[in-house]
Amino acid sequence: MTETGGPAASGDSTEATMTRIRASFDKQGMMATLGVEVIMAEPGRVEMALRHDDRFTQQHGFLHAGAVASVLDTACGYAAYSVMPPDAAVLTATFTINLLAPAAGQRFSIVGEVVRAGRTLVVCRGEAFADDDKRPFAVMQATMTALYNRPGIQG
Amino acid sequence: MTETGGPAASGDSTEATMTRIRASFDKQGMMATLGVEVIMAEPGRVEMALRHDDRFTQQHGFLHAGAVASVLDTACGYAAYSVMPPDAAVLTATFTINLLAPAAGQRFSIVGEVVRAGRTLVVCRGEAFADDDKRPFAVMQATMTALYNRPGIQG
Amino acid sequence: MTETGGPAASGDSTEATMTRIRASFDKQGMMATLGVEVIMAEPGRVEMALRHDDRFTQQHGFLHAGAVASVLDTACGYAAYSVMPPDAAVLTATFTINLLAPAAGQRFSIVGEVVRAGRTLVVCRGEAFADDDKRPFAVMQATMTALYNRPGIQG
Amino acid sequence: MTETGGPAASGDSTEATMTRIRASFDKQGMMATLGVEVIMAEPGRVEMALRHDDRFTQQHGFLHAGAVASVLDTACGYAAYSVMPPDAAVLTATFTINLLAPAAGQRFSIVGEVVRAGRTLVVCRGEAFADDDKRPFAVMQATMTALYNRPGIQG
Repeated sequence: MTETGGPAASGDSTEATMTRIRASFDKQGMMATLGVEVIMAEPGRVEMALRHDDRFTQQHGFLHAGAVASVLDTACGYAAYSVMPPDAAVLTATFTINLLAPAAGQRFSIVGEVVRAGRTLVVCRGEAFADDDKRPFAVMQATMTALYNRPGIQG
Repeated sequence: MTETGGPAASGDSTEATMTRIRASFDKQGMMATLGVEVIMAEPGRVEMALRHDDRFTQQHGFLHAGAVASVLDTACGYAAYSVMPPDAAVLTATFTINLLAPAAGQRFSIVGEVVRAGRTLVVCRGEAFADDDKRPFAVMQATMTALYNRPGIQG
Repeated sequence: MTETGGPAASGDSTEATMTRIRASFDKQGMMATLGVEVIMAEPGRVEMALRHDDRFTQQHGFLHAGAVASVLDTACGYAAYSVMPPDAAVLTATFTINLLAPAAGQRFSIVGEVVRAGRTLVVCRGEAFADDDKRPFAVMQATMTALYNRPGIQG
Repeated sequence: MTETGGPAASGDSTEATMTRIRASFDKQGMMATLGVEVIMAEPGRVEMALRHDDRFTQQHGFLHAGAVASVLDTACGYAAYSVMPPDAAVLTATFTINLLAPAAGQRFSIVGEVVRAGRTLVVCRGEAFADDDKRPFAVMQATMTALYNRPGIQG
């Protein structure tokens, strides 16, 4: 799946990926504020969950596009990070989000997946689902950058 | 500037725009949570301000891309709303954000402007600035939709 | 798959879709110039083929991003058109394309698929493949608009 | 304007930029096929022209979105290239285009400008105008990559 080597062959790959992502995730004030949980992380794919909260709504009472984008961006970012070399840090270069329907529901499942990875740029796709709906209410196409050897920038 | 009629000719246009936007803005839990202020609103252009807060950071301590996107999206949304007919409600269809540099600073100025407006779709551009830097650290290209006659959806 | 009704139930659905798309496709000077073929069309999914041609290269001798974008946009446009009501015309509102690798190859397969469709906006995803490579070298996220009752605009 | 040094101070900067761009531009089969002209190039800004031609139309007789995207992408690419170090080659990583109105006209003016440039990524904005209309009918936000030391890839 990736030009950086793809999913590791060793059995502990998913566990190691999860540990590396969690260490970075736990530093994010934004994720704690939104109450986001990491549900699953494996090389090239990350799933997160978010609950409806009136603190994060737009004017019609649905979840704000920016809240949805925050979690989709983070899921895509960690999907990218999971296939980067261990010494890389990850930053978002750009993303495009389409809001297909209002973010109406109680629990939102957000998935980020690597489409293709190079050494510097990793392109991901994200999808957001509300409750039991099988159709996404939001989709993202994101470009993540790997940074190397930047003092103070890691994870 | 717009196909819906452009900036109104009457002297109270900016004030009326500001009132209409504020009524909608005040219903947004997300804007209250982020502590966003509306600095200025006139037909086709809206400026907002956001302060650095550790509750909204990513893993390197900078403001999260999703927090920046939330405010850029809102500024673009209200710029679009300001040129829509009074009976329209505004929703984000899609946006693309580029993060040009880390969101490092104390106070962020976020501007949304209408590029061109039709009856259903309004395209906007947004720029985000940190402190006194004249160069944007983030830019957005956004497509907003006007909704008409949807029960429960207004503003 | 779509809010407009999804794939039709009748057995001739795919054939009718193909006929409707071909009538529109045959009016496109751009598709004739690029030598694009419609390989397959069914409700919600369209596949096209393009061959390498030195008339459509960029400066390094690969296919130009704009040529790839032209066919991805068209495949997404007809995927959207295939789920629109018969009286709708289709126009591109916006798309985002990521070029994941140079467009190097002899024959390119380009697929457009509907992600979710409303009455006015239909969101699609596209993927482009070179020769026998199973990984896409380009991906697109596109927003198509349905136009109704515009004189002179049909198909 | 740029982190790579910005516009050169010497008086021949614009001329040198023009020469470097033209050498690359002349290798593009796609630009010759579309009949595109480089009108102006200076560090950080490039303007091109395109004429209506029935060979490049979509189904309603307007210029195809892909033809417009091809020239906007190229104008943005050379705007980026104009501020890159002389040993860099330029490739498109991703772009988003909004079609604001049909591409109806005889002569189209297409402008690409650098928003901000780093060593690896350069972000640009493009605008396309028809005949004497002062409002753009299409806008682009593009991310260009600088490649260094890739055998066979230059310009």
